Amino acid sequence: MKTTYNLQNLIKKIEPVDMTRIDEIQSQLDNLTKPQGSLGRLEELAMWFSLVTGKTKPVIKNKIIFAMAGDHGVTDEGVSAFPKEVTAQMVYNFLRGGAGVNVLAKHVGARVIVVDMGVDHDFEPCSGLEIKKIGYGTNNMIQGAAMSRKEAEEAVIAGIELVDKYRDEMDIIGTGDMGIGNTTPSAAIVSVITESDPAHVTGRGTGISDDSFKKKISVIRKAIAVNKPDKNDPLDVLSKVGGFEIAGIAGLILGAAINKIPVVIDGFISTAGAMIAAELAPSVRDYIIAAHQSVEAGHVKMLDHLELDPILNLNLRLGEGTGSALGISLVEAGVNILSQMSTFTDAGVNEKSDK
Amino acid sequence: MKTTYNLQNLIKKIEPVDMTRIDEIQSQLDNLTKPQGSLGRLEELAMWFSLVTGKTKPVIKNKIIFAMAGDHGVTDEGVSAFPKEVTAQMVYNFLRGGAGVNVLAKHVGARVIVVDMGVDHDFEPCSGLEIKKIGYGTNNMIQGAAMSRKEAEEAVIAGIELVDKYRDEMDIIGTGDMGIGNTTPSAAIVSVITESDPAHVTGRGTGISDDSFKKKISVIRKAIAVNKPDKNDPLDVLSKVGGFEIAGIAGLILGAAINKIPVVIDGFISTAGAMIAAELAPSVRDYIIAAHQSVEAGHVKMLDHLELDPILNLNLRLGEGTGSALGISLVEAGVNILSQMSTFTDAGVNEKSDK
Repeated sequence: MKTTYNLQNLIKKIEPVDMTRIDEIQSQLDNLTKPQGSLGRLEELAMWFSLVTGKTKPVIKNKIIFAMAGDHGVTDEGVSAFPKEVTAQMVYNFLRGGAGVNVLAKHVGARVIVVDMGVDHDFEPCSGLEIKKIGYGTNNMIQGAAMSRKEAEEAVIAGIELVDKYRDEMDIIGTGDMGIGNTTPSAAIVSVITESDPAHVTGRGTGISDDSFKKKISVIRKAIAVNKPDKNDPLDVLSKVGGFEIAGIAGLILGAAINKIPVVIDGFISTAGAMIAAELAPSVRDYIIAAHQSVEAGHVKMLDHLELDPILNLNLRLGEGTGSALGISLVEAGVNILSQMSTFTDAGVNEKSDK
Repeated sequence: MKTTYNLQNLIKKIEPVDMTRIDEIQSQLDNLTKPQGSLGRLEELAMWFSLVTGKTKPVIKNKIIFAMAGDHGVTDEGVSAFPKEVTAQMVYNFLRGGAGVNVLAKHVGARVIVVDMGVDHDFEPCSGLEIKKIGYGTNNMIQGAAMSRKEAEEAVIAGIELVDKYRDEMDIIGTGDMGIGNTTPSAAIVSVITESDPAHVTGRGTGISDDSFKKKISVIRKAIAVNKPDKNDPLDVLSKVGGFEIAGIAGLILGAAINKIPVVIDGFISTAGAMIAAELAPSVRDYIIAAHQSVEAGHVKMLDHLELDPILNLNLRLGEGTGSALGISLVEAGVNILSQMSTFTDAGVNEKSDK
């Protein structure tokens, strides 16, 4: 599909969230039958959702989790515990509803849309699958750029297009990923953007051995040394040491900000996408909530850089959008508090006497 | 209602959870299409639920949150930010579905049953209300025991009776509370049982001023000095510095253990009830999950004492069962992972190659 989207023009559309309604929403929260602030983080999530959407009595009805899938040439270096074929196998598992993200999405009432951003396999079109294939996996980034700059741009635009396509069918977006090897490019991205030593931001992904872990760190070092990504040029970083699904996630987040739709990001891979999006358009941070603190080593660094405070800390490290699903449910809990609880006046409950 | 229950005999029925199935459940979890352990806390919750119930493919369909309500004579001392009448007003709010716990219970698909354990008001019988009234509020504990030992025992038994009554209508129990002033007896309980200075385990409850906070600490000191509760006799502690709803919560937890029903406890007040239950029958700890870490100062001490690791930390301090509702949803998420995800074999996904 030829796109008429121009990334630079799209990015210019992104505005910071209008904060002028904070006091109005705060007094709405404070009139509810509970001590002020006693629902803590849920109230903050309600505030955020109301600010992003501009709605006074918001409702979350339709929820979509996009599971962005792609393969990685760097798996040739033995950086993952699972063989590369598992990416395509897991896409089929997603489509049949048997994966972790399916179970948790169902639990919270969300749809899962799987997106082939660049899996090394041809899928037949089917329900629940979007084909936005940029290539059959990235190049091995220790031998040169993972993808061309043009491909990186196309992959980001694909994410924006998805939000545009589904915008009337979703009140909130969750991001997710599937791609054997994708903690390696994600660690490379956080390493470059935050100027951190790869040893400090690399984790064990799906659970690699000590030897593979050492190898993974040296592979990331080499990829950075070979490609010399320019940290001030996010598309350069993305194309040289990124991945198709990571680019797609960056696009989803940009698209969410353009369309003023709240977005809940998952763990390490999704946050790598969020870092690229935030480097392209710093205001996107207003539109993002981090679902959880991942076990993966570099995630803390990413969240600190983005100034995001994760809602959950459940020792998750699966990805797919599993954390997003749980995060969406908590955002909905907060939104329902704002929209459904009785006020002191309505309920005939006395207010605080000890001020 | 005359009860034929004998508390000491009931307590003897409580057995530790059978741990012999751990390996079996672990291999069931490890066969699912995800890296082993990658769903962290959710897998632990699934393990726990499966062990407690003895079920291999557990399902959580019916969920009940019991909101135990009672008044406290100690409110005469000005320990709460809200007037005492608010307890009864909030019970009506619960019954109409307008309170925080109603909104969150609805969000997670749970019923709320409000229990009048000892509110200073007569309620007409109605749907969703259980009347187990032990008295019209406790006595002011700085002048003597909050209740008699017999009342404490009756209140605990009332909680056990509730579980017996509803056991076929619930797969999981959430605890909750409503009682203006009830952080004061809860702080007194943790102070006595853990031999902590009241200043270290007392918080600001619904949000009291600095002056009221100082007063609250001195009231707790005085109540302990006047009553001299015996820390080795949980019913003595409960009767002298407890509350009717706290006793009822202790009963719910004992009843859950007797009936082998998993129970999710809410914050500070519920955990005070759990401490009494665990002093009466240490094995009840196997049946409990702590939903969240409350803002209330002494909650950390309680959870440490019970060796419970809370699932959430959302700066909640409302009580009612609001945290339980969110906790129940996460237990259900874990249980669904165990029961609904595909295995590697079923999904045709390759297993880990780097062992």
